[in-house]
Amino acid sequence: MTAHPSPATTPSTPRSAPGLPTPLTGVVPPVCTPLTPDDEVDVASLERLVDHLVGAGVDALFVLGSSSEAAYLPDRHRETVLTTVVRHVGGQLPVLAGAIDMASLRVLDHVRTAADAGADGVVVTAPFYTRTHPAEIARHYRLVADRGQLPVFAYDLPVSVHSKLDADLVLELAADGVLAGLKDSSGDDGGLRRVVLGARARTDTPGFAVLTGSELTVDSALAMGADGVVPGLGNVDPHGYVRLFRYARDGDPERARAEQERLCALFGMTGVGDPLRMGASSSGLGAFKAALHLRGIIDCPRTAAPQVPLSAEETERVGKFLAAAGLL
Amino acid sequence: MTAHPSPATTPSTPRSAPGLPTPLTGVVPPVCTPLTPDDEVDVASLERLVDHLVGAGVDALFVLGSSSEAAYLPDRHRETVLTTVVRHVGGQLPVLAGAIDMASLRVLDHVRTAADAGADGVVVTAPFYTRTHPAEIARHYRLVADRGQLPVFAYDLPVSVHSKLDADLVLELAADGVLAGLKDSSGDDGGLRRVVLGARARTDTPGFAVLTGSELTVDSALAMGADGVVPGLGNVDPHGYVRLFRYARDGDPERARAEQERLCALFGMTGVGDPLRMGASSSGLGAFKAALHLRGIIDCPRTAAPQVPLSAEETERVGKFLAAAGLL
Amino acid sequence: MTAHPSPATTPSTPRSAPGLPTPLTGVVPPVCTPLTPDDEVDVASLERLVDHLVGAGVDALFVLGSSSEAAYLPDRHRETVLTTVVRHVGGQLPVLAGAIDMASLRVLDHVRTAADAGADGVVVTAPFYTRTHPAEIARHYRLVADRGQLPVFAYDLPVSVHSKLDADLVLELAADGVLAGLKDSSGDDGGLRRVVLGARARTDTPGFAVLTGSELTVDSALAMGADGVVPGLGNVDPHGYVRLFRYARDGDPERARAEQERLCALFGMTGVGDPLRMGASSSGLGAFKAALHLRGIIDCPRTAAPQVPLSAEETERVGKFLAAAGLL
Amino acid sequence: MTAHPSPATTPSTPRSAPGLPTPLTGVVPPVCTPLTPDDEVDVASLERLVDHLVGAGVDALFVLGSSSEAAYLPDRHRETVLTTVVRHVGGQLPVLAGAIDMASLRVLDHVRTAADAGADGVVVTAPFYTRTHPAEIARHYRLVADRGQLPVFAYDLPVSVHSKLDADLVLELAADGVLAGLKDSSGDDGGLRRVVLGARARTDTPGFAVLTGSELTVDSALAMGADGVVPGLGNVDPHGYVRLFRYARDGDPERARAEQERLCALFGMTGVGDPLRMGASSSGLGAFKAALHLRGIIDCPRTAAPQVPLSAEETERVGKFLAAAGLL
Repeated sequence: MTAHPSPATTPSTPRSAPGLPTPLTGVVPPVCTPLTPDDEVDVASLERLVDHLVGAGVDALFVLGSSSEAAYLPDRHRETVLTTVVRHVGGQLPVLAGAIDMASLRVLDHVRTAADAGADGVVVTAPFYTRTHPAEIARHYRLVADRGQLPVFAYDLPVSVHSKLDADLVLELAADGVLAGLKDSSGDDGGLRRVVLGARARTDTPGFAVLTGSELTVDSALAMGADGVVPGLGNVDPHGYVRLFRYARDGDPERARAEQERLCALFGMTGVGDPLRMGASSSGLGAFKAALHLRGIIDCPRTAAPQVPLSAEETERVGKFLAAAGLL
Repeated sequence: MTAHPSPATTPSTPRSAPGLPTPLTGVVPPVCTPLTPDDEVDVASLERLVDHLVGAGVDALFVLGSSSEAAYLPDRHRETVLTTVVRHVGGQLPVLAGAIDMASLRVLDHVRTAADAGADGVVVTAPFYTRTHPAEIARHYRLVADRGQLPVFAYDLPVSVHSKLDADLVLELAADGVLAGLKDSSGDDGGLRRVVLGARARTDTPGFAVLTGSELTVDSALAMGADGVVPGLGNVDPHGYVRLFRYARDGDPERARAEQERLCALFGMTGVGDPLRMGASSSGLGAFKAALHLRGIIDCPRTAAPQVPLSAEETERVGKFLAAAGLL
Repeated sequence: MTAHPSPATTPSTPRSAPGLPTPLTGVVPPVCTPLTPDDEVDVASLERLVDHLVGAGVDALFVLGSSSEAAYLPDRHRETVLTTVVRHVGGQLPVLAGAIDMASLRVLDHVRTAADAGADGVVVTAPFYTRTHPAEIARHYRLVADRGQLPVFAYDLPVSVHSKLDADLVLELAADGVLAGLKDSSGDDGGLRRVVLGARARTDTPGFAVLTGSELTVDSALAMGADGVVPGLGNVDPHGYVRLFRYARDGDPERARAEQERLCALFGMTGVGDPLRMGASSSGLGAFKAALHLRGIIDCPRTAAPQVPLSAEETERVGKFLAAAGLL
Repeated sequence: MTAHPSPATTPSTPRSAPGLPTPLTGVVPPVCTPLTPDDEVDVASLERLVDHLVGAGVDALFVLGSSSEAAYLPDRHRETVLTTVVRHVGGQLPVLAGAIDMASLRVLDHVRTAADAGADGVVVTAPFYTRTHPAEIARHYRLVADRGQLPVFAYDLPVSVHSKLDADLVLELAADGVLAGLKDSSGDDGGLRRVVLGARARTDTPGFAVLTGSELTVDSALAMGADGVVPGLGNVDPHGYVRLFRYARDGDPERARAEQERLCALFGMTGVGDPLRMGASSSGLGAFKAALHLRGIIDCPRTAAPQVPLSAEETERVGKFLAAAGLL
């Protein structure tokens, strides 16, 4: 697959062993970005969070995705996150990096930064802000893969990007070596299944990974044949998702379902924020960070501007979700 | 702070005379960004384009907006555009700069760059990509104005940002000194009028400018009381928009309408691109650049990736629109 | 124009003199539907409302549109409205009837009812609820015009129908005799102008009427060349819209604008409803009916279920808007 | 009233034994509506289709849903469908009827017709066409349940209705006896799971049924705890969905998955229509009807206007899907 050059042919992208498995499988949490009270990256907290995730047995890390508040972070913060995590992981696990920006040339700048920092792959959405045509989405991914020197995972996130990746397009790009995988956060599990079954029916997409970003349906996505999961809630309870993945992998759907249902209850924390006062990002990311703070993993629960902070009472409700799940 | 700090109180934002009038009025074209065949900013063409616009008598320039392909341009290109235009204009006219990015801290980085380059104001959308609540939009503008050290114009562009700025919120931010003006590209002239009349009815929004970004209804927006116009098509025919503005200002609605109707016909060029092959940005921005190329103002009609180029036949149709308008 | 058969050739659609002018011009209020406290059509109030409108000098009436709560009214209520208004008007003015339903065969049932009741034309949206393709929109209008035996006005209302009528499609259907006119409630005055100028540039759309449904930009729509206006607020203040239309027709843009601005202020009543408690229909239609009740024209301000009623305090605010406009 | 009144307490709604189980479970195909070449309901074909479904062992029938083209069918056609199916089924199975219309009073007319015809329950969406507030959605369901005299199933279909039913609202309405169940065609299986788990966690929603309308994820929805499935594709292959349901019920997830994957392949038929020529309804419903025609169950594959018919070549491709699934 020519789009995924080996380290030997692309000396400009030194990737640590063990590099990126093909396909990528397992639990790949999108790492939250702890901030200091004055809006800097809190490096010590980030390292503790990485230890928390790695220690739980996750299979790879995804930095600078939506749960990482990538849309809110200046480039300088993004670089700090990347270099901190790559260095701290030290090659124990693959690190994927979001390259979240509006169009191809801007995305390519982030891809270069990720390559220089030693990331093992990048995660890229369709163009946004622009009025995008399917032909332009295809051009975008081809260009990013061709010039970018890192394996590319398509990131399907219609709630942010306002277009849906078509299953046939994804498969065509996979077959052409443009895409190494798909992170499907569309919530449309029928569409995810079309990609899984389409890839299985073809012989020209070996190693293509389908990862679900939907925290609430991981057991069923894995039962359908998805390769892994990228759960925002995995920041809070990585052990739970690791157990869930192992039960599913080992053919124990009952235990997988029970674990999933426990995590569904925990996910209720994302709704603590008052919808009259704040949007869904403020509530959901605020809850994840409050939980990490309450669990003692990060120093400060602050989310990036212009998100609205949780109130004391809302934070208290996060604590109750943790307690009910046995996490406090 | 007041919304429009004078150079004396904000030494970090050296702005050339004549600075920014309050309110900003007249024709403020959103300057296209000419590219070389290898995707660099074509500085010489950009300077010719600026001369073309200034020579036509426009009142200010707006760089790095949607018509400038700001969403497609890497930061390095954005800086080149900014410094080129500010230097080339040399204080003859105010220069506004788009600070187009997803959320507050990223926008603030662009605002700082704009201030350092000597821009006279910035144009800022609501947050996008993120799931945004009205309270977060208000926080966003307050933060950008407070920390940004440049007058802020709100940019209402629902087709890109997927939220609409509420008239009452805009007026509240104007009254609080957060906003120096509004660039309304929503196409909703009823909404624009609500802002115009709301500002007129209050005593606490002196100097607040309402600019329309809708090329096809400039005469009526001005008749309603809008202060100016930011027409993408003004790249191609700045003289037409300057005449239109003067007719409107001088109380000659008939001539204003005739000029507007001529420009409406010319605007038909934005539809030359085959919708089966490309999106609306590729077609519209491609047509503007093809026209500038055909008129001899820029060297290369290339649009930034992943936009789809116009075909030879589509470019020929652009030429026919120019010829019909007496511009070739 | 074969789509608009004369009474002689279509004996099944007896229309009263003076029939429908081509083009239809002037003020065509979308008549509110007064209800009794037990959700029946209040015929006496409806007749008083018709007298109020006719007495103000409007040019035609439009029943069973969005402002008439057509989406909320059972077919039996719709028929009562139609027969009441047609009979009460007695041929003094043309009566248009909304035929608001999801797809062609259902719409045709309403068209037949309208024809039988003696309406002079029907107003028809694109299909909705269904996932609609532009080719299907064209088929829809062709079928309704072909089988429907009444002149058809296209109703562009993206906020309800979730698709926008394309200007080129409208003009093609006009040229083919399918459409007698357009009621544009899209709020997109650039699009309205494209239809106005497109119709003027062609020789094959004689008598095609472009009517704006945007209460706040009537003066400018008329200045652009629109033929008339269908203002929901015209229920409350028909005299104002009649004056506005006459000023515009008689070439007095200053007075037209002043009248329009007075009506813009009055339109503020549509925002009285608390957005935490109710949607925009409940607030806007509730305000119109509250105003008609306060002015003594209808007996009961009730809106149809499941709309939320205005509170006493919200109704009081409607009264203040009336008082400020000299209507109480 | 309780949400599930027995015949004894609601004499106005004579329902045949065995009435409606609580909760409703199993396979409930949304019955296609065969048409004659002149757009009448083809009663003989409809009866053959019912026999085909009942003979396959389905658990109930759902008429007048989206797959039945309810949005396209005049009321007279709707009544013919209802009376034909209720009479032909003769009480062997429960019959649910869609009551698809824009707002409460119109929906109630359909509910009354359904009750008079002997349907066992109705399926009702949120209001559409109107600009709808969550409070109005709640009022709508309460009113329809209160006045309607039949068990009400909420129909979550954002692609048609343009709002999503909130899980908490659904559960609240279930607890209040307003809703007998949910047909979730949103494609959002995380949301479906929230309702399933929420209902299980409460003691006040006994008998509440959660049915998925997503053909491609039935095995996983059942594994999550959904009670049944309403598959449009079940018209074409009811035996497949009956097997799938039984495997899932009997704790054989492997076989359930294999059957589901076979049905996923068959579902590919819904994409045969050229997207340049037609919309998704024309393609999907056209494919179902072409398949039923090719299988000899209905006489004519015609879909209702303004849908675009499949071409001969597209129909041939439907045949290939049938052949590949062993259905021809």
